Amino acid sequence: MMLQDDTICAISTPHGVGGIAVARVSGADAITIVDRVWQGKPLSDATSHSAHLGTIVDERGDAIDQAVATIFRAPRSFTGENVVEIAVHGSRWVQRELINLLIRQGCRIAAAGEFTRRAFANGRMDLAEAEAVADVIASSSRAAHRIAMSQMRGDFSNRLSSLHDQLLELASLLELELDFSEEEVEFASREKLLTLAQEIHTVVSHLASTFATGAAIKDGVPVAIVGETNAGKSTLLNQLLHEERAIVSDIHGTTRDTIEDTIEIGDTLFRFIDTAGLRETTDTIEALGIERTLQKITDARIVLWVIDATAGIDAINRASQRVLPQLTEEQILVIAINKTDNPDADIINIENSLRDIITTTTEIIHISARQGTGIEQLEALLVKASGTADIAPGEIMVTNARHYEALTHAADSIARAIDGLSMGLSGDFIAQDIRETLHHLGEITGTITSQDILTTIFSRFCIGK
Amino acid sequence: MMLQDDTICAISTPHGVGGIAVARVSGADAITIVDRVWQGKPLSDATSHSAHLGTIVDERGDAIDQAVATIFRAPRSFTGENVVEIAVHGSRWVQRELINLLIRQGCRIAAAGEFTRRAFANGRMDLAEAEAVADVIASSSRAAHRIAMSQMRGDFSNRLSSLHDQLLELASLLELELDFSEEEVEFASREKLLTLAQEIHTVVSHLASTFATGAAIKDGVPVAIVGETNAGKSTLLNQLLHEERAIVSDIHGTTRDTIEDTIEIGDTLFRFIDTAGLRETTDTIEALGIERTLQKITDARIVLWVIDATAGIDAINRASQRVLPQLTEEQILVIAINKTDNPDADIINIENSLRDIITTTTEIIHISARQGTGIEQLEALLVKASGTADIAPGEIMVTNARHYEALTHAADSIARAIDGLSMGLSGDFIAQDIRETLHHLGEITGTITSQDILTTIFSRFCIGK
Repeated sequence: MMLQDDTICAISTPHGVGGIAVARVSGADAITIVDRVWQGKPLSDATSHSAHLGTIVDERGDAIDQAVATIFRAPRSFTGENVVEIAVHGSRWVQRELINLLIRQGCRIAAAGEFTRRAFANGRMDLAEAEAVADVIASSSRAAHRIAMSQMRGDFSNRLSSLHDQLLELASLLELELDFSEEEVEFASREKLLTLAQEIHTVVSHLASTFATGAAIKDGVPVAIVGETNAGKSTLLNQLLHEERAIVSDIHGTTRDTIEDTIEIGDTLFRFIDTAGLRETTDTIEALGIERTLQKITDARIVLWVIDATAGIDAINRASQRVLPQLTEEQILVIAINKTDNPDADIINIENSLRDIITTTTEIIHISARQGTGIEQLEALLVKASGTADIAPGEIMVTNARHYEALTHAADSIARAIDGLSMGLSGDFIAQDIRETLHHLGEITGTITSQDILTTIFSRFCIGK
Repeated sequence: MMLQDDTICAISTPHGVGGIAVARVSGADAITIVDRVWQGKPLSDATSHSAHLGTIVDERGDAIDQAVATIFRAPRSFTGENVVEIAVHGSRWVQRELINLLIRQGCRIAAAGEFTRRAFANGRMDLAEAEAVADVIASSSRAAHRIAMSQMRGDFSNRLSSLHDQLLELASLLELELDFSEEEVEFASREKLLTLAQEIHTVVSHLASTFATGAAIKDGVPVAIVGETNAGKSTLLNQLLHEERAIVSDIHGTTRDTIEDTIEIGDTLFRFIDTAGLRETTDTIEALGIERTLQKITDARIVLWVIDATAGIDAINRASQRVLPQLTEEQILVIAINKTDNPDADIINIENSLRDIITTTTEIIHISARQGTGIEQLEALLVKASGTADIAPGEIMVTNARHYEALTHAADSIARAIDGLSMGLSGDFIAQDIRETLHHLGEITGTITSQDILTTIFSRFCIGK
């Protein structure tokens, strides 16, 4: 890495105000630089993994804050470099002044993910493990966290690198044959090679197939809440989120914008998208909202259609003409018949009129969003529809689009190698497909990676990690 | 303190997601409890001020996260008790699970400010110093931070306690006289007592008088931005905040709600309040907004009236009838004539029509919010109007309403003592006023404080501090 020589700093704790905030400083000069702004026992004398109380003082002699500095000496640190972690009071002002002071004293502000990038560059972790650090931080459900922890601890990498190493060994033998091509020797057993290639194809294809569910687990299973205006969508959203997130009123068209929020149900994160009610409107802002609603339906994995049981059959037919054409085959439709506590609710007629519309996979449930009845059953239905309950414990899931792409390419090239082996093609054709497979597997763990790709990967991290 | 025996825990870093988050555990059992969920070298063997890498594991054996635990042994910690600080990845899920795990293992979730309250109870700081911890955290400008740091480091307490101690000594002599009342002795020199009482009165009154400015510095000087709809208030707010905070459009009444945000100008924090435009409206939500606007004007220290230079004199007269009657004598009116870059701007007529309205202290400035002209001049005007530039360096400022109240009471009672001394009243009358003065001074540093008051004070802290 080119920028390894300088010393970087950033606030590593979440944005905002809190009891304490932690600035992380990493690089050869980390301890020397912090010592320049440190009033207390000199940190240069401190042993690794020791914490010290002192005061951060700026060039004017103004005390920025009382602080605890913890020293981690290279290579026994997260990045593998000298690291100082400075815990100060979590005031916005103190955090900003501390970073400005460190920069004036010779630090550079860290790029997003640069601490982890340095850990990768210094061999403290491979690329898939480094990427998992960001996923661990972003994970907001037990399911997502379990996948990310497993990846950070190397389960995914180990699975791939064992296959990678076996394939590399056979590939080397194959390359060796090419050097002796006149002699028609076969160093690499074609039988062994075929068995291994088939195993790799199975594993890689299976991993790639976990991506759809893995990505939904990681980002939250997207559920679009749709329906006519005043069907009670916002009331239902508030029930599902256990808070007053959306403004609720009896006025038609209260929700103009789409409101998105996530919550964990069971072990799974759901991302609920409350949409503007579907109706003809002359209000420009509301019309824009309805356009966005139709877009949100396309992105959802589950479409939750809320029906007002008191609104009559005509309203349902109008809504169904708007909702149903938007659905794709992969999407799951859940219909919630709302306001069933209302004496005007006409449930039997509604269910009859729905009979023509729905398919066998559609789930129908009766609720009263206002009274909170049927909500637990609806939650159970959503967990079932999300498919996350079907994941075996310990199963490795792919959640990263970059990994998915590499796995798909690896599956393609190893499939070509299998075809070639079955057809008895000569070693040089097969060697090329195997080299490609190795390349794509190596992209995941970072043995083969360009600086551009690294920059893209780590730019998705938060600053300070 | 009654609850001192148990062990408390909380996330001490700001809410939200970040690179790392820190949970703080304090109490006699802190190290023992963390050891129960710790995979790594046992923390019970660790020396004070040492940091250790390990894994937090829950009862099911699921790894919650890799973590660094730093040990602070009693009494060498913030609270004076055993403290473990656990740094984990700053995921919302990890933070929540870690705290839940610690609670299941015998911790209690800390009340707001409880760590600092324990520091106070264990004699690590006096009450005014402890209160300043919250102020250091909340401070968001150099001016506010300097005041809070000075108070946390004891400048305010030392000033008061030196007076308190001198007064206490003379009071004891006075009380002694009362025991020998038949003999008409004078142990306490009346001359010395009068000089000291006058000095205390001067200091205490002066400190109390700094509260109005001190409070504005601490919370941000409130500036209400008012004016007709479409005068450009939101555009100006965005200019002052250097960001797109408010939605701007040409549609009258775009801003329905009041938008509040703070920014530091120079060394001073300002709290800008963008209000709904003043106009007659039939829109219920907008009418509510206008009602709130009038309330916000009352709370402001500076009222910034934005005038549309192209809207004509009638509009100004209408607005002035709405704005001016709301102003109090303490408030400063700043008038910004906006859209001066527009060829239709009628500045001369506007200034003439304003002449009858304004007082000598009113400041008028020409701006173009859209083009950003005149903004720097406006900022300088606001700093001047805030009065914060007049504070001498090193001056102790009162920013806390509780201190202000105690100081006011102390000033009253010491004034009564001075009157009594001047009139040559007998020792028992004077002694009572002096006891009262001592009581109020003691309230500030916490030598005299009820548990109820402590609970109120620390409940204003954030959780985790």
